[in-house]
Amino acid sequence: MKRTKVGILGATGAVGQRFVQLLEGHPWFEVTELAASERSAGKSYAEAVEGRWKLSADIPDYARELRVKKCEPGLDCELVFGALDSSVAGAIESEFAEEGYFVVSNSRNHRFDEDVPLMSAEVNPGHLELLKRQKTKGKIVTNSNCTIMGVTIALKALMDAFGLQEAMLFSMQAISGAGYPGVPSLDILGNIVPFISGEEEKTETEPLKILGKLAEKGIENAGFRISAHCNRVPVYNGHTVCVSVKLEKKASVEEFKRALAEFRGEPQGLKLPSAPEKPIVLREEPDRPQARLDLMAGKGMVTTVGRIREDPLMDFKFVTLSHNTIRGAAGAAILNAELIKAKELI
Amino acid sequence: MKRTKVGILGATGAVGQRFVQLLEGHPWFEVTELAASERSAGKSYAEAVEGRWKLSADIPDYARELRVKKCEPGLDCELVFGALDSSVAGAIESEFAEEGYFVVSNSRNHRFDEDVPLMSAEVNPGHLELLKRQKTKGKIVTNSNCTIMGVTIALKALMDAFGLQEAMLFSMQAISGAGYPGVPSLDILGNIVPFISGEEEKTETEPLKILGKLAEKGIENAGFRISAHCNRVPVYNGHTVCVSVKLEKKASVEEFKRALAEFRGEPQGLKLPSAPEKPIVLREEPDRPQARLDLMAGKGMVTTVGRIREDPLMDFKFVTLSHNTIRGAAGAAILNAELIKAKELI
Amino acid sequence: MKRTKVGILGATGAVGQRFVQLLEGHPWFEVTELAASERSAGKSYAEAVEGRWKLSADIPDYARELRVKKCEPGLDCELVFGALDSSVAGAIESEFAEEGYFVVSNSRNHRFDEDVPLMSAEVNPGHLELLKRQKTKGKIVTNSNCTIMGVTIALKALMDAFGLQEAMLFSMQAISGAGYPGVPSLDILGNIVPFISGEEEKTETEPLKILGKLAEKGIENAGFRISAHCNRVPVYNGHTVCVSVKLEKKASVEEFKRALAEFRGEPQGLKLPSAPEKPIVLREEPDRPQARLDLMAGKGMVTTVGRIREDPLMDFKFVTLSHNTIRGAAGAAILNAELIKAKELI
Amino acid sequence: MKRTKVGILGATGAVGQRFVQLLEGHPWFEVTELAASERSAGKSYAEAVEGRWKLSADIPDYARELRVKKCEPGLDCELVFGALDSSVAGAIESEFAEEGYFVVSNSRNHRFDEDVPLMSAEVNPGHLELLKRQKTKGKIVTNSNCTIMGVTIALKALMDAFGLQEAMLFSMQAISGAGYPGVPSLDILGNIVPFISGEEEKTETEPLKILGKLAEKGIENAGFRISAHCNRVPVYNGHTVCVSVKLEKKASVEEFKRALAEFRGEPQGLKLPSAPEKPIVLREEPDRPQARLDLMAGKGMVTTVGRIREDPLMDFKFVTLSHNTIRGAAGAAILNAELIKAKELI
Repeated sequence: MKRTKVGILGATGAVGQRFVQLLEGHPWFEVTELAASERSAGKSYAEAVEGRWKLSADIPDYARELRVKKCEPGLDCELVFGALDSSVAGAIESEFAEEGYFVVSNSRNHRFDEDVPLMSAEVNPGHLELLKRQKTKGKIVTNSNCTIMGVTIALKALMDAFGLQEAMLFSMQAISGAGYPGVPSLDILGNIVPFISGEEEKTETEPLKILGKLAEKGIENAGFRISAHCNRVPVYNGHTVCVSVKLEKKASVEEFKRALAEFRGEPQGLKLPSAPEKPIVLREEPDRPQARLDLMAGKGMVTTVGRIREDPLMDFKFVTLSHNTIRGAAGAAILNAELIKAKELI
Repeated sequence: MKRTKVGILGATGAVGQRFVQLLEGHPWFEVTELAASERSAGKSYAEAVEGRWKLSADIPDYARELRVKKCEPGLDCELVFGALDSSVAGAIESEFAEEGYFVVSNSRNHRFDEDVPLMSAEVNPGHLELLKRQKTKGKIVTNSNCTIMGVTIALKALMDAFGLQEAMLFSMQAISGAGYPGVPSLDILGNIVPFISGEEEKTETEPLKILGKLAEKGIENAGFRISAHCNRVPVYNGHTVCVSVKLEKKASVEEFKRALAEFRGEPQGLKLPSAPEKPIVLREEPDRPQARLDLMAGKGMVTTVGRIREDPLMDFKFVTLSHNTIRGAAGAAILNAELIKAKELI
Repeated sequence: MKRTKVGILGATGAVGQRFVQLLEGHPWFEVTELAASERSAGKSYAEAVEGRWKLSADIPDYARELRVKKCEPGLDCELVFGALDSSVAGAIESEFAEEGYFVVSNSRNHRFDEDVPLMSAEVNPGHLELLKRQKTKGKIVTNSNCTIMGVTIALKALMDAFGLQEAMLFSMQAISGAGYPGVPSLDILGNIVPFISGEEEKTETEPLKILGKLAEKGIENAGFRISAHCNRVPVYNGHTVCVSVKLEKKASVEEFKRALAEFRGEPQGLKLPSAPEKPIVLREEPDRPQARLDLMAGKGMVTTVGRIREDPLMDFKFVTLSHNTIRGAAGAAILNAELIKAKELI
Repeated sequence: MKRTKVGILGATGAVGQRFVQLLEGHPWFEVTELAASERSAGKSYAEAVEGRWKLSADIPDYARELRVKKCEPGLDCELVFGALDSSVAGAIESEFAEEGYFVVSNSRNHRFDEDVPLMSAEVNPGHLELLKRQKTKGKIVTNSNCTIMGVTIALKALMDAFGLQEAMLFSMQAISGAGYPGVPSLDILGNIVPFISGEEEKTETEPLKILGKLAEKGIENAGFRISAHCNRVPVYNGHTVCVSVKLEKKASVEEFKRALAEFRGEPQGLKLPSAPEKPIVLREEPDRPQARLDLMAGKGMVTTVGRIREDPLMDFKFVTLSHNTIRGAAGAAILNAELIKAKELI
């Protein structure tokens, strides 16, 4: 198979760096273009991220000498991954779609456009049908907010097995979710900040679209309700979410666990390169999941679930953990792109 | 007024140290006895806690040279504060009560004894009636688990104003709650542990007794239901709790806030020495309370409440913060003792 | 004694906030003016610092409603404390001095002006002689960089007793030293950054002026040499410095300890309001000083010294800790101002 | 080549776990035996470490079902890696050597035995000559304390190129160096502890033996002197050391850098499986090395060196970082064993 040429918009930012890293040696995609703001344009990628490369492995060799371009059509690639700040992403992505590029975006701007799939490859591959309704030469697919990416996979497994009535989500979110420089250390060292601007709103709405059904006019939201409490905690990577759910159908603890453990999606069936063998890994130890120990399960693409127990108010409670910049951002977008390619939509 | 002679059982441990510190210069109590395990008995207090004094101010001068005794009756005092480990506290406290001492305990052993008040001075001063039913010469009063101490004051204010149906509590608890050496740094540095042994059980039951009604046989639990998710976080002092509540009576956000802000208890009416002017302080900033900023409000005796907003599933959500070793442990016990003295029960 | 009216330049920044806090209820100074950038001018102080007040106690009542002014002469006060960013401090302070204000500055701009004392009240009160050489109607006094403030007091005690040949300083500096927002949490959570821009240069030069002698042309630097390694560590407040020194005169460990423990300066003799009883507190425990435990000794104005032992290469090694925003910044400047007032220079 | 059967003594502890992990799929060694205390003996390895496995990847499959044995000869292997606590390691290792096993130990007990090499494979491979003097059927080789392992490689490069007179070492050591449970979080969260029991003594002596010369009676220590300041910091893995050195021969900064960057040892020449391509990686950025970014260079076997600059007191200063449980413990021992096998000493 010939590798598809891809570009990265916003390649110098925190999520962009993660794209650069995860796409190193990718079997299906070849990064031919790195694009960023005017300030970086014209420099080699290594120069452009000097002093701002914040991943623990070095800049991949393939990227070091690539010349950074502006975020304008004219890039030599078929597909662009979007890692731009939401203050500019909307218009730029639209422009690329107009010009015939396939845009796979991590930004929030187009997430609720009626004909744009808000995609999680294991959860709603059928929403790719919406692409046919996009009028542009190119297409746009988005992925969701980092916090809900992991937990929505668990909700999908539960919805399929038992139906969902209500979900209460309490998040404890890593600092890398805020980008760089992001959270000042004076605010978070040895402290908790029980607020993240805009986060509870996204957490209460995005899963409903992802878990919704194709309808005449876009997606019909899933019919259950969500309440979210979002907190910033002094953890580097990895969003932990405590969840209480009310089901439509009664279930035993064993059935509940089985529904999660046995869940598989299309990426597993298609053996996509970035798909973990199992999207959900269950831990039976009383004190898991933990970011320190479970973050890199499935190369950061697994949602680890633990502490499944009955809830005195709702039906069950449990804890999920997923890697916010891999499963919750760049990795999720790459998996979406793999699905798109496997389905020959590109 | 003559100061009452008091002793501290378990004076060398983490909670014991906090008692020693908070009782320095107390207007109503004079610490005449410090008692601890055999290992410490016979040493001066300064020697006994050498290398284990973990508070940021020095050992108070009054305590340095006090000779540590064993935890056996025969101490020269009327009242003892209990800061013993629960593995030994039950029997020792019973023995002191038998011998005529007034025991004001922070340990969990007697909390659910039918005739023992589980006290929070602002919340259920009426439960002191139970003391009349205790058959021993001395008496026992307990205070609750550190996590729920602060949040129960908020629940009391809400129950009085609107009635409560359900409460979902999601805690992020400081490491000092586990004593010393307590939580290994390898488990918690840059990490979250979504489990604390026994904590959710206490959190789901203790508030119901505190908020319950005097009945023929002990206390009749309050009639609402609680679900708890308890987490350990890398914060030194200060337990943060995210709360969702379902009320019995509808309320506007303004009424809800007012009920919390205007709540006062007997300690405020009686102007007890350790009582904060207001038991609950409301913060209107979007990102408060925070341990870093709000921990020492009211010298650590205030419950700070913030982020009051409507909840899509229940009625309201909010966040509370209180100091787990002051309001949640030693400070609460001292306030209980002050109430007892103000009511001339000792 | 009538209180002197004082103003604070840069009152909304991190150091400015500390001035506002420490001057609450000061017996000799009354804060009549708070000045800051154009952005804040015209607002009440409470409005101006909204969302940026980062101290753990609330804004003092006296300051809340004070109207913030621009940093221009015309302020109703005799003395101004300088807490401005060094990018603007130099010219503004000169202007205030021209107009007759006494400027007591924490900024670095004038520290090496020939006729400006670089003052540490316990160390070089005699340098106030330089004020006579300043040609302006008002005067300027500066204090040093936060890192060396504490350690220089220890060096002074040793220089007086034994003479100094060499000092090797290894610092581990708190994040509050970088102001707000300052150090991004992604850079420092669970990490060490072995570099702080410009810090080693200041650490190797400023103590030599402070410890120097009045000479015809300004100050003649002290004659020993310093080498510094400066590191940023994930500690909120408190700079720890490991020190190795080579003395001119041999000393026993006991003599060495005594020289430190018995050191007193003019502020102690004059009983200045902010002067700690002893400028240096010696700890004999093997593992002290520690920021967690020793930071607030003497209300943050003490330098705690511990781990005194022989050094295989030089003569002795030891560890110092001092509070970087109190003893190392605002507190030091206030102590300088108290000394100036006690000497009737204002 | 047939793989050599190896065992791990103390396989359930922190260093033992790291051996288990690093030896997974090793091309030369096959782990056939895991041995630990009586408490673990008889259990499967997975059972034995339940709740104590603290590495971020899961227990390797090969080890899960291995039956843990007691630390007694009779194990089916030729070589044992020693990861025992020093309270028991000495006698057990001697017993294994008596019985003909090759012991490659990370414990400190035999480090200063006259005929036992204190080995760092890149630094003193010639010390393996000492093995001929060991009278036992088996042999013992030790590696050094975790702190100095990385820095000694840098000192070796400098000693070879310029000769060394003096080295001042200032360490900031990760919590994993203290094992599990190790450092209580109450001691280190947001704090620095400027003391680690016994650490400065080891740091001032062990490099001198490693860098020493074979002599008639054991090893003649290297002739320069070391002073060490050792600190515990809130970092998970990775010991940072600030170094000042005085050389015997003058050098320019460029020569100094080149001596470090071009250093190679026998493991590189022999292309040992665990040998990094370069033992020392130089970073030119002003703020490196950092644990967050450089820890896993060369799979944790590299010493990263940065901030090379002149020292006002000695000749040069710089900063080193190495992984304390890989290069500083288990990885170093494995590299030693690889060297031993490559030289056909086993």
